Amino acid sequence: MSTKAIQDHYPEKFAHCYGCGPANPHGLKLKSYLKGDRTVAWFTAAAMFSGGYPESVYGGLIASLLDCHGTASAAAFAYRNRNRIIGDGLPAIRFVTASLKVDYRRPTPIGVELAIGGRLIGLDGRKAIIALSLKVGDAMCAEGEMVAVEIPGKAGETS
Amino acid sequence: MSTKAIQDHYPEKFAHCYGCGPANPHGLKLKSYLKGDRTVAWFTAAAMFSGGYPESVYGGLIASLLDCHGTASAAAFAYRNRNRIIGDGLPAIRFVTASLKVDYRRPTPIGVELAIGGRLIGLDGRKAIIALSLKVGDAMCAEGEMVAVEIPGKAGETS
Repeated sequence: MSTKAIQDHYPEKFAHCYGCGPANPHGLKLKSYLKGDRTVAWFTAAAMFSGGYPESVYGGLIASLLDCHGTASAAAFAYRNRNRIIGDGLPAIRFVTASLKVDYRRPTPIGVELAIGGRLIGLDGRKAIIALSLKVGDAMCAEGEMVAVEIPGKAGETS
Repeated sequence: MSTKAIQDHYPEKFAHCYGCGPANPHGLKLKSYLKGDRTVAWFTAAAMFSGGYPESVYGGLIASLLDCHGTASAAAFAYRNRNRIIGDGLPAIRFVTASLKVDYRRPTPIGVELAIGGRLIGLDGRKAIIALSLKVGDAMCAEGEMVAVEIPGKAGETS
């Protein structure tokens, strides 16, 4: 597993995301990693990100974590599929979300490390389908499925 | 249309949501209103909530706005369906998200007023299905569909 996150290879132009952009000083800075045939990330939600109940995470943050992890995962799987390595100096591979579905399985606790996972369901041309999960220990708090679409590459936007 | 938002009637116990809780001093404080047979809300995203591109909103915020507006809408439609008025002093009707699907149609701009809409697809027992939209003017930026589930009422939690 690389010690440098997938997001840390984003070209500066694409690095402003509140959820995961290294160039956004106010953001959450989610860091996703390719580990074998899966992707992983960890996040601990601060108290301010509560849902209706003070002790649980609000649904929008859960969707945000899955969304940012999903597009990072799509890029990582596409690099691997093309026998490329993230940060190889060639034009960067980047995906945007076309659709995201989140199933909320149980309340997600505040102040506890959440493990976010990604798994490739399919890659077809510019389209990637990613299965996503958010767990606390073995407990599944949320599951997601994303359809992501690759942004056509442009010269000079290297990772 | 009431001048008091649906969220401003939430019992204190449920009012801590980062996305829409009046009791969360750090949050976004989305305000949703019942207007005829629809629900509406407006939000202008600050620059910090950018997506990968600095000029567009990050996907997680879009999901957050639809999520918070969706559960508020479900409650408002359930009140109406029972011939009740929000804030009538009886036990409050509150919903949580079971699942949310968001289709991202085009980039959503930063610093521009976004109009969020909700429409009831169906109410069946404790379950509500809500259609959601996020527009800038006539341009549809995102569409969503939520399945929300009513939280069983408890004595003393009045709206």
